[in-house]
Amino acid sequence: MWKKAILWAAAALASLIATAETGYELWQRYAPPAQATIASQYRSLLAVHFRSGTPTDSVLLAELDRAFQGMLRSRPRLSPSPQSAGLIIQLFQESAVAAWWPSSVPQQCGPEGFAVHHRVVAGRSQVFIGANTSIGLLYGTFHVLRHMAAGRPLAGVATAGASAPATRWRMLNHWDNLDRSVERGYAGQSIWNWHTLPDYIDQRYIDYARANASIGINAVALTNVNANATVLTPAYLEKVKALAQVFRPYGIRIFLTARFSAPIEIGGLKTADPLDTAVQGWWQRKADEIYQRIPDFGGFLVKANSEGQPGPQNYGRHHADGANMLAKALAPHAGVVIWRAFVYSHETPEDRFKQAYQEFVPLDGRFDSNVLVQVKNGPIDFQPREPFHPLFGALPRTPTMMEFQLTQEYLGFATHLVYLGPMFTEVLGTDTHRPTAGNTVADVVSGKSFGYTQTGMAGVSNIGADLNWTGHPFAQANWYALGRLAWNPRLDAASIANEWIAQTFTQQPAAVASIRQMMMQSHEAVVNYMTPLGLHHIMGYGHHYGPAPWYDKASRADWNCTYFHRADQHGIGFDRTSTGSNALQQYAPYWQQQWASAKSTPLSLLLWFHKVGWSEGLPNGKTLWQNMALQYQQGVQQVQQMQQSWAQLRQAVDERRHQQVTQLLHIQASEAVWWRDACLSYFQTFSKQPLPAGVPAPQHPLEYYQQLRFPYAPGQAH
Amino acid sequence: MWKKAILWAAAALASLIATAETGYELWQRYAPPAQATIASQYRSLLAVHFRSGTPTDSVLLAELDRAFQGMLRSRPRLSPSPQSAGLIIQLFQESAVAAWWPSSVPQQCGPEGFAVHHRVVAGRSQVFIGANTSIGLLYGTFHVLRHMAAGRPLAGVATAGASAPATRWRMLNHWDNLDRSVERGYAGQSIWNWHTLPDYIDQRYIDYARANASIGINAVALTNVNANATVLTPAYLEKVKALAQVFRPYGIRIFLTARFSAPIEIGGLKTADPLDTAVQGWWQRKADEIYQRIPDFGGFLVKANSEGQPGPQNYGRHHADGANMLAKALAPHAGVVIWRAFVYSHETPEDRFKQAYQEFVPLDGRFDSNVLVQVKNGPIDFQPREPFHPLFGALPRTPTMMEFQLTQEYLGFATHLVYLGPMFTEVLGTDTHRPTAGNTVADVVSGKSFGYTQTGMAGVSNIGADLNWTGHPFAQANWYALGRLAWNPRLDAASIANEWIAQTFTQQPAAVASIRQMMMQSHEAVVNYMTPLGLHHIMGYGHHYGPAPWYDKASRADWNCTYFHRADQHGIGFDRTSTGSNALQQYAPYWQQQWASAKSTPLSLLLWFHKVGWSEGLPNGKTLWQNMALQYQQGVQQVQQMQQSWAQLRQAVDERRHQQVTQLLHIQASEAVWWRDACLSYFQTFSKQPLPAGVPAPQHPLEYYQQLRFPYAPGQAH
Repeated sequence: MWKKAILWAAAALASLIATAETGYELWQRYAPPAQATIASQYRSLLAVHFRSGTPTDSVLLAELDRAFQGMLRSRPRLSPSPQSAGLIIQLFQESAVAAWWPSSVPQQCGPEGFAVHHRVVAGRSQVFIGANTSIGLLYGTFHVLRHMAAGRPLAGVATAGASAPATRWRMLNHWDNLDRSVERGYAGQSIWNWHTLPDYIDQRYIDYARANASIGINAVALTNVNANATVLTPAYLEKVKALAQVFRPYGIRIFLTARFSAPIEIGGLKTADPLDTAVQGWWQRKADEIYQRIPDFGGFLVKANSEGQPGPQNYGRHHADGANMLAKALAPHAGVVIWRAFVYSHETPEDRFKQAYQEFVPLDGRFDSNVLVQVKNGPIDFQPREPFHPLFGALPRTPTMMEFQLTQEYLGFATHLVYLGPMFTEVLGTDTHRPTAGNTVADVVSGKSFGYTQTGMAGVSNIGADLNWTGHPFAQANWYALGRLAWNPRLDAASIANEWIAQTFTQQPAAVASIRQMMMQSHEAVVNYMTPLGLHHIMGYGHHYGPAPWYDKASRADWNCTYFHRADQHGIGFDRTSTGSNALQQYAPYWQQQWASAKSTPLSLLLWFHKVGWSEGLPNGKTLWQNMALQYQQGVQQVQQMQQSWAQLRQAVDERRHQQVTQLLHIQASEAVWWRDACLSYFQTFSKQPLPAGVPAPQHPLEYYQQLRFPYAPGQAH
Repeated sequence: MWKKAILWAAAALASLIATAETGYELWQRYAPPAQATIASQYRSLLAVHFRSGTPTDSVLLAELDRAFQGMLRSRPRLSPSPQSAGLIIQLFQESAVAAWWPSSVPQQCGPEGFAVHHRVVAGRSQVFIGANTSIGLLYGTFHVLRHMAAGRPLAGVATAGASAPATRWRMLNHWDNLDRSVERGYAGQSIWNWHTLPDYIDQRYIDYARANASIGINAVALTNVNANATVLTPAYLEKVKALAQVFRPYGIRIFLTARFSAPIEIGGLKTADPLDTAVQGWWQRKADEIYQRIPDFGGFLVKANSEGQPGPQNYGRHHADGANMLAKALAPHAGVVIWRAFVYSHETPEDRFKQAYQEFVPLDGRFDSNVLVQVKNGPIDFQPREPFHPLFGALPRTPTMMEFQLTQEYLGFATHLVYLGPMFTEVLGTDTHRPTAGNTVADVVSGKSFGYTQTGMAGVSNIGADLNWTGHPFAQANWYALGRLAWNPRLDAASIANEWIAQTFTQQPAAVASIRQMMMQSHEAVVNYMTPLGLHHIMGYGHHYGPAPWYDKASRADWNCTYFHRADQHGIGFDRTSTGSNALQQYAPYWQQQWASAKSTPLSLLLWFHKVGWSEGLPNGKTLWQNMALQYQQGVQQVQQMQQSWAQLRQAVDERRHQQVTQLLHIQASEAVWWRDACLSYFQTFSKQPLPAGVPAPQHPLEYYQQLRFPYAPGQAH
C-alpha cells in the first residue's frame, strides 16, 4: 500500500503541475530558459532603455514585464541612459540605435519593420531594437522575446539588416457568425461574444491581439464571408468599435464582410446594383459611418456570386464593377476591398477547377487600386493537397492575395495533428513561371513579380472559445506559421516548427527534434490516408467529416465525390489535360508541359490531372492500384509512428498536454484506418484487384462505412 | 516619464498575477489561508492516515494532494498509524474513527453521509473523518477542505453527529443539445463535446465531476429535456458510457432525457403508446442496452406533453401511464424516472398557472415507486419571484422533486449578478400548510412530510464552455448553493455565500462581508428592476432578453406579456382569486385565506393574485403606481450600490475578476435603467399618472424601447 501511495503521489503531482498548462497561453508561455548559462545571459536585458509614449509603447512594456517575469522571474527596470541598459528600444530618429546599421536600414524597415543588433560589452550582452514607428518597435520586441522564449543564445538575435514584412495585410479571416457559431470551426464557439459587446471586454480579446501581434498579424476579418448584413447596422458597429479599440495598440485593423445585398436588406433599397447611384451612395454613407467610429478600419472582405451569395452578376455586372463600387466608398478613408476569387456559380460547370480563372483573368487591370483579389491556395477548396491556383501569376495588374485555410475543414478537423507549414511553403515556393521562370507564388503574393501596390496573405482562422483556442494543441502551430510566413514567405517550415515547439512545449533539443519530425511528416501523412496520388474532395457530404468517395446524391454534380475521382472499371482520376477539361491550359506553358502526360506528372498530383488505369505501371514499378493501397497504408503507419514518438516524450512535455495529444493521436490513428478501409473497400469495387501485401483487410464491409451518419459533426453553421 | 513607468509596472504586475485567476478553478482554488496561525494549525493535517483501495479513494487522495499543495504549499504524506496522523480518514467498520461518535451515527450517515470530529492533542489538531462508504469519505474530505479553503479555525470543522444528505438525488439538469447549443445557456457551448467522445476525455469532465462532488451533487442529466432521441442510439450511448466512467469515482450518476416518441423515431415502431406491448418491449430492451454499458445509470428525465413535446396524452393515456412504462423498464436495474410537472398543453388555458396541479393531483398514488415528479419552484416558469408551486404538499403519495433554475433565463442571463441563494431558501422555507402547518417545501422535498421513498432537488445548469464555466463569476455561486441546499435545505443563504466567497475570492472578513451584502441584496434588486410587486413574464418574446411588457403578438394568448400583467386603464395584475381564475384554490386553506384579499397579500406577490387599481392605496401609504415606480427605481439604485461596493473591493480581489465584475455590473446597471424606463413608460400609458419624485424621466420615448430587436440574443437553441 505504501508503494502505491508513492506512485499516487507522483501522479498527483504531475497532474497538479499540469493544471497550469491548459494551452491558453499559446506560444507566449515565457517559460524560463532550460539552460542556466542562457538565463544568466538574458538577465542583462532586465535593464531597459525605452521612452514610452504611445498606447503601443504601453503594451510593449506590459509584454516585456510579463515575459521577463516568466522567463527570468524578475521584473525589467527602466534605465535612464542607453549606456547603462542591456535592452535599448528606440526609434531610428532617436540617437542610440541608428548607429548600428547601414543608413539604408531605416528606409528598408518601412512603417512596420525593425532591426535588431547584438553586442557584448565587458562580458555583458546589449541588444538594440530600432524601428521607425511604435508598432515596428513592438514587432522588434516580439522578435527578441520569441528568440529568448525559445531559449536561444542572444548572439543569434540580431537581424541581418531590416526585418520588414513581405506583405501589407497579414490577416486572419474568421468565419464566425453573429450567433457565435463558426462555419468550419472545430474549436468551440466564436470568441466574439457579440451579446456582451461593447460593454464587456473579455480578456480573450486582449490575449488574441497579443498573440497576433507577436507573429506580425495586422488584420482580422471578424465575420463569416457568408454572414448576413446585420454586422453593418449601428448597434453592431458599436460592438466592432469596441474591438477595434482593443486591437489598435497592437497594430491590428479590423475588416468586416460586406454582404453585397446589404443595401436591400438593411438599407431599404430595391436593388444592390453596383452601377445604381443610390446603391453607391448607400455604401459611401455606410463607409463614412464606419470610419467615424473606427478611423483605422481596414475595409471589406467580400464573397460575391459564389455558393448562393448575392453579387454584381445578379445585375448583369462583373466582379470589378462590384469591387470598385465598394473601393470607391472606402478610398477616401484609405480602406481596401478584399474580393474573393472563390466563385462558384449556380450552374454546374464543366470543371469547377476552371471557373475562377475564367472569371478573373479577363478583368485583370479593371480593378481599382485599393482592391485585392483573394485566391485560395489551390483551384478547388482547401484539399489536403492541391496544385497551386492558376490565378497566381495570371493577374499581373491585380493585387493577388493568398487565402490559406488554418481550420482543418478537410484535414481531420481539430482532432488530427496536421502541421500545415510544409503545405504552405510547398505552395509559396512553387515557381509560377509567370511572367518568367523564377517567380514563385510567394513572389507574386509579396508583389515582387508584378510590383503590386497592395499585398496580403490570409488564413481562415482555426480559433474558437476552447480553453486552448484551437482544440488540438498542435493546431496552434498553424496559426503561428501563417503569421510567420505572411511576414517572411521564405522561412522554412521546419525552422518555424522549431521555434514554435521551443516556445510552446520544450526547449530540450532531442524533444524538439522529435516533435518537429512528427510535425514535418504530418501533412504528408494526412494526404496519404485521405487523398493520396492527387485524389480530392472525397469527404462526407456537407460536414466533410470522414471518407465518402461513394457519395453521389447531391443536387448538383460537382457537389458529389464521384464527380472528383471519376472512378470506374477502367481507372480513376480527373482528366484535366487537352483530352479532358483542359484546365491545365490555365497554367504557364512550363506546367502545361510538365503535367500534360501522366509520366511527367509527379505522383502527388497524378489524379488531379489524369485518369489512370488501375493496372497501369507507375515509375516506381507498382501499379496504380497497388500504389494507392500502399499509400493509404503508409498514411496509417505514419500516424502510428507519431503515436510512438509522442509516447517517448512523456518526460519532456507536461502531463496534461501530453495526455491530450495522446488521446487525439488515438482518434487520428483510428480515423486513418477508417479512411484507408473505407476508401480501399470502395475503390476495390472498381479495381477488382486484391490488396497488396502489407495492407490489411478492411475491418468492416463497405456497407458499414456507407451507412455511418454524423448529424452533429461540428463546423456546420446554422 | 519615470513616475509613469513605475505606475505602469504596478499595473502590469497586477495583470500578470491576475492571469492565474481565470475563474476556471471555481471554489476549488485552494488559496493559502490568509492568517499564519491558521496555516500553522492546518499543517498538522499533512500527516494523513488513510487506507486507499477504491477508485473513489484515489480521487480523494488526489484532491487532498492538490488542496494541500495549494493551501499549505506542501504535499500530504501517508502515515501508517492513526496515532501519528493529523487527518484520519476511515470507514466506520475500521477501528480508529468510530469511537468518536455515539453508536447511532454510522447508521444516521447512511450510504453517503459522514461525520467529522476534531480534537487537540499536545497542542496539535487531529481531525477524524468517518463514513460507511468510500463516497461518504470523499464527501467528508470535501467538507474538511471546504472549511480549510475558507480559512476557518479547525475547531469548527466537526459535524454535530452525522452529516447526511436530505435528498437522494442532488442533480444538475443540463439543457444541452447534441449540436452543443444550450437552450437558455449563457456561458458558451455545452461542455459535452459529443464529436470527440468517447475517445477524448476533456480535463473539463474531470474538473466538473470534482466540483460537483465537492458540494454533494450526485446526478446529472446530460441532455436537454427538449432533445431528440439520438442520444439513445448505440453510437451516443458509447459516448455517454465514457462520461459515466469519468463520473463514477465521484459518486455521480448519469441520467438521460428520454424523448417519449423515441420508439418511433429510432425504434422503427408505428406508435409510442405506453400501453402497447411492442413499445414497452422496446423501452425494456433499450434500458437493458443502457445498463449493459452503464451499470449505475440513474434513469430517465422526461418532459412529455408540454410545449409540443410528445407524451402519453397523444394516445389518450395519462402521465402515470407514461411514467410507469418507463419505470418498469428501469426497475430491474434500480433506475428511476424523473417526470416533469412543467406541462403546457396545446390549448390556451384559462390560467396557465393551474395546469400542472390539475393534471397531477388526480394521479397522486398512481405512479410506480421509482418515479419522481419534478416540479418547478413556482407555478409559471422561473420568474424572478414566484409564489411556491401549489403541487408541493399536494402529492402525498408521489415523490415530489424540486426543480430550480440556475441559468438566469429570466434574471439577466450571465451578465447580471443575481445570487439565487435567498430565492432558493425563500421557497424551501415556505410552509405549505400541508398536510398541516409546519411542513415546509423543504420538508416535502426531503421526504419528511410524507415519507417519500425517493427524494431529489435539481438545478437547471448554468454551465458552459466559458473559461469560468458560468459566464458571470458570481453565477458560480448559484451552482454552489444548489449543491449545498440539496444536501441540507436548512442552510441559510448568507452562510452559503460566506463560505463560497472565502473559497472563491478572499478570506478578508471585511471584504467577505461586503461581497456577501452585495449578493444577499442582489435577488431583491433584480425583482425590483424587472418585476416588482408580483409582476411576471414581461420579458422579450422567445429570447426573454430585456423588457417587453407590451408584447401581444404571439400565436397564443399565454405567450404574450399582456396575458400576464393584464394592465389597462383600471389597474394591473392577474386576478387569481375566486373572482378570477381561482388558481388560489390550489393552495392549502391557510394560503387561500392569506392571499384572498389584496390587503393581506404581501406586496411581493400582490399582482400574482390581484388586479389592483393604479391609485389604490397600499399599506405603506403609497398608491400602487407610486409604489411600482419607486420599486423600479430602488432596483436601479441597488445595482448602483453594488457598483459602489465592488469599486471599494479593488484591493481585496484579483485584478482580472475585479475588472470582469466591474464591467458586468456596468451592463447590469444600464439594463436596470432600461427595464425601469421601458416598463414605466409602457405602464404609464395606462396609469396616466406622473412619475413620483425620485424617479427620473425615461431616457427615451416608449417607441424606442419597443423597436429594439435582438435577433442573436443567446440561449436560443437551434
